[in-house]
Amino acid sequence: MINKKVIIQVLGFLLIIEGVFLSLSFFVSLYFNQYDKFALGITALFCIISGIIIKLTTKKALKTISKRDGYIIVSLVWVVFSVFGALPFVISGAIPSYTDAFFETISGFTTTGASILNDIEAMPYGLLFWRSLTQWLGGMGIIVLSLAILPVLGIGGMQLFVAEVPGPTPDKLHPRIKETAKRLWIIYIGFTFVETILLKIGGMTWFDAINHSFTTMATGGYSTKQASIAHFQSPFIHYVIILFMFLAGTNFTLSYYALHFKLGKVFKNEEFRYYVGFILLYTVLIAGVLMYFHDFSLEKSFRDSLFQVVSIITTTGYVTADYLLWLPFITVMIFSLMFFGGSAGSTGGSIKIMRITLLLKNSYQELKRIIHPNAIIPVRINKKAVPQQIVTNILAFVVIYMLITIIGTIVISSLGYDLDTSVGAVAATIGNIGPGIGGVGPVENYAHFPVFGKWFLSFLMLIGRLELFTVLILFSAAFWKK
Amino acid sequence: MINKKVIIQVLGFLLIIEGVFLSLSFFVSLYFNQYDKFALGITALFCIISGIIIKLTTKKALKTISKRDGYIIVSLVWVVFSVFGALPFVISGAIPSYTDAFFETISGFTTTGASILNDIEAMPYGLLFWRSLTQWLGGMGIIVLSLAILPVLGIGGMQLFVAEVPGPTPDKLHPRIKETAKRLWIIYIGFTFVETILLKIGGMTWFDAINHSFTTMATGGYSTKQASIAHFQSPFIHYVIILFMFLAGTNFTLSYYALHFKLGKVFKNEEFRYYVGFILLYTVLIAGVLMYFHDFSLEKSFRDSLFQVVSIITTTGYVTADYLLWLPFITVMIFSLMFFGGSAGSTGGSIKIMRITLLLKNSYQELKRIIHPNAIIPVRINKKAVPQQIVTNILAFVVIYMLITIIGTIVISSLGYDLDTSVGAVAATIGNIGPGIGGVGPVENYAHFPVFGKWFLSFLMLIGRLELFTVLILFSAAFWKK
Repeated sequence: MINKKVIIQVLGFLLIIEGVFLSLSFFVSLYFNQYDKFALGITALFCIISGIIIKLTTKKALKTISKRDGYIIVSLVWVVFSVFGALPFVISGAIPSYTDAFFETISGFTTTGASILNDIEAMPYGLLFWRSLTQWLGGMGIIVLSLAILPVLGIGGMQLFVAEVPGPTPDKLHPRIKETAKRLWIIYIGFTFVETILLKIGGMTWFDAINHSFTTMATGGYSTKQASIAHFQSPFIHYVIILFMFLAGTNFTLSYYALHFKLGKVFKNEEFRYYVGFILLYTVLIAGVLMYFHDFSLEKSFRDSLFQVVSIITTTGYVTADYLLWLPFITVMIFSLMFFGGSAGSTGGSIKIMRITLLLKNSYQELKRIIHPNAIIPVRINKKAVPQQIVTNILAFVVIYMLITIIGTIVISSLGYDLDTSVGAVAATIGNIGPGIGGVGPVENYAHFPVFGKWFLSFLMLIGRLELFTVLILFSAAFWKK
Repeated sequence: MINKKVIIQVLGFLLIIEGVFLSLSFFVSLYFNQYDKFALGITALFCIISGIIIKLTTKKALKTISKRDGYIIVSLVWVVFSVFGALPFVISGAIPSYTDAFFETISGFTTTGASILNDIEAMPYGLLFWRSLTQWLGGMGIIVLSLAILPVLGIGGMQLFVAEVPGPTPDKLHPRIKETAKRLWIIYIGFTFVETILLKIGGMTWFDAINHSFTTMATGGYSTKQASIAHFQSPFIHYVIILFMFLAGTNFTLSYYALHFKLGKVFKNEEFRYYVGFILLYTVLIAGVLMYFHDFSLEKSFRDSLFQVVSIITTTGYVTADYLLWLPFITVMIFSLMFFGGSAGSTGGSIKIMRITLLLKNSYQELKRIIHPNAIIPVRINKKAVPQQIVTNILAFVVIYMLITIIGTIVISSLGYDLDTSVGAVAATIGNIGPGIGGVGPVENYAHFPVFGKWFLSFLMLIGRLELFTVLILFSAAFWKK
C-alpha cells in the first residue's frame, strides 16, 4: 500500500537539498576559518553523495503521490532533515551529545527556537549560520506545506484557505506545489533581503543581520546572541524586527496581494483583522501595566510590550525583556498568547488566528443554535459559510491540541518539574515558540531537561509544526489498515 | 416575550422553599441555643411571608413554560437562593461582609465548596447546618436539572442522556420533572441517610455525620472542620466518604438501575466504565509516587491517593492531605483532574466524564475522517451513533469552558495573583470543586480575594454549575431579540 520507492526517492532528494545548504554553511565556516569547517564539510559531502547514490540506484517512480504517501513524506522531511542536520554539531564537538544536537536542530527546522546552548556566542560562525539556516529552510517548507500541501491532505481545516491561494486546481500535488512555492518563496526571500539591509542600517554586522533575518522570517527566534534581541539596544532594530515578525506571522498570500496593490483583499480579510486586533489588545493591556506599575516611559512600554506580544503571537520567541520579572498578570497574558499563533499560511505555529477566530464565532453561534434548534446557523468567515465538516475538524484540532498540552504537561512534570515549567515547556514546544514560562523563561533554556525530556519535547515540536494530524495519523491503526 | 408572571410566581415559590429549609436550620440553632437563632429565624420568616404574599397577589400563570422562560428561571433559582440564603450569615454577624456571605452561599448552592471562612469551627451550629444544607439542596436541584430540564432546553449535549432516563416524553417540562425528581430524590435521600448512619458508626457525632453526608452527596465538600476530612483519623470514615463521593459522582439513573438489580445496564454504560477507569489510572499513578518517593505504606498510599482522586474527579473537594506538599507531578495530575468532573446526571460539576469520553473518541474518529474524507464516521456512545449536532455542541462546550478558564485566569491574575493561584481558583470555581492549587490549595481558602474577585468567582461557580450555556445564553443578543 505504501509506495516505498517514492519514499526512498524523496529521501535521496532531501539529502541532496540538505547537502547543498550545509555546503553554504561550510563556506561561511571557511570564510571565518574556524574549527567547525571540517564537520560542516564532511556532513555536506556525505549528504550529497548519499543522495546522489540513492538517485542513481532507484528508478523514477510515479509522478502522482497518494495522500497516504503524502502524510509519510511530510513527516519524513522534518525528521530526516533534523537527523542529518544535527551531525555537524556533534562531529565538531560544539554540542557533544547527539540528543542535544538533535533537539537544537529539530527546534531549528520546526522554527521553534528552543535552545540547549548555554553560551551561544562561543559557537563558531559556520554552525551559528547553519542553526539560523535550519529555521529559514523550515519556514520555507511551512509556507508550501500550509498553503499547498496540507489543504490537499485535508489537515486541520486548512482547506479553508485553498480558495484564497492563487494557483492551479488542487487535483495533483506536483504542479500546485511548484506554482505556489515559486510565488510565495519570492516574497519570503524578498522580505529576508529587505530585513537584512534594514538591520545592517540599524547597526548590526552583516553576519548578525543575515542570521536574524533568517530567523525572523521563519518566526524561529534563534539569535546569535545569548541575550537574544535584548543584546541590541537600538529601538530602530527593535521596530524593524517587530515589523518583519508581524509580516512573517501574516498569511503570505496576503503579502502577495499587498505587493500587487490589492490592499482591499488584505484589509477585508477577517483573519488579518483579528490578528491585528489581538496584537493591539494585548499590547495596550501590557503597556498599561508597564507604565502604571513598572514606571516605564510611554515609548518604552509600548515598544517592550509590542515586541513581546508580536514575538509570542507569531511564535517567534525573540525577547527584549525578561517578562517573568514583570507582574504575574503579564506572565499570564503572555502564557495565554502562546495558544494563539500566527495566521494560517504564515510561518507562525501554534493554534493559529484563523482557528481561534472560527472558535470564537462558533461559540456564539452555538448559543444561537440552542435558542433556535431547528435553524441551520453556519459560521461565516470572510462572509462565506464554513462547511460543518471543517468546523468540526477545527474544533477537534483545538481539543486535541489542548489534550496533548495537558498530557505533555503531566509527562514533563513526572520528570520532577513544577507546573509552570512543565506547561511552559510544552506550550512553547508544541506551539513552536521557544521560550516559555517558569524554568524555560526568556533568560533560561532547555539544557536542564533529561534525555527523555528532550526527545519528548522534540516530538512535540514536530507534531505542533505539522498541524498535529499529519503526524498523529501515522500512529493510528486506521492508517496502516489496507 | 418573556413571561414575567411566571417568573414572579416561581420567585415566590422559591422563597417559600428556602424559608422552609431555613426554618430547619433555625430549629438546629434553637436546639444548640446559640447566637445564630435570631438571624436564621427572621430570615426564614421573611422568606416564607414574602413568598406567600407573592403567591396570593399573583394570578395563576400558564402551566406550560417556554424554553426561553426556562433559561431565565433556571439561572434565577440559583441566584435567588444565594441572595437570600446569605442573609443569616450577615444578620448574625458570623460573616459581617455581604460579599463574603454571598460567596459562601452561592458556593454552597452550586455545590462548589470554596470557602472564605478562616475558622469554621468557631461558627454556630445552626449556620453550619444551613451551610451544609445549601449544598444538599443544590445537589437535589442539579439532579433534576441535568436529567430532566437541561435535556429539554438543549444544553451542552445533555440530550444524550434523555433516552437513558425512565420517565414520560419530554414534551412538557412539568410532568417530566415531577416523575424524574421523585425517583431520583428518593435515591439521593436514601444514600444520604445510609451515609449518615455509617459515619456515626465510624465515630462522628450525629451533627458531623449529617453535615458530611449532606455535602458528600452534593459533591459539595463543605466540612464542619477547618481541616476538612483530615480532621478524622479513622480509615473507615475515609473509605465510607470515598464510597459515597463515588456514588454521588455517578449518574443517578445508574444507581436507580443498580437498586433495581439491573446491573448489566450499569456495567455496560460507557461513561461509567470511563469514570471508573480514570479513577483507577490516576489512583495507581499517584499511589505509586507516594510509595516510591514519599515512603508511604501501601494502604496509606492507596487511601490517600484514592481519596484525593475521587474527591477531585467528583468535584467534591474534601481533603485528607495537602497534596501540594507532594511532588509537583501530583499537583499537575490533580490539576488535570479538575477538568474531568463527575458523570452526567450526577451532582458532580466540571466538564463531565461523558463529554471527555466523547471528546477522546471523536479525536480518534477525526483521524479516520481525514483518511477517508468521503465516509461518514460517527462517534458511538453505548454502541449508538451520536448525532453530529450533539458532537459539535459538546466540542463547543469544551472549547467555551477552556476559553472562560483562560479569560478568567487573566482576570484573576490582574488582581495580582500568580499563574498557579489564578488558574487554580478559576478551575476550582467553574468546575465547582472548591480547593485548587497555589494560593487556593487544600489548606487555603478564598478569604484573601478582593471584593471584585469574589463576585467574579461567584459568577464562575454559577455558570459552571448551570452547564455554561444556560447562563451565557442570557447574555447573548440573540436571546433578547423577539
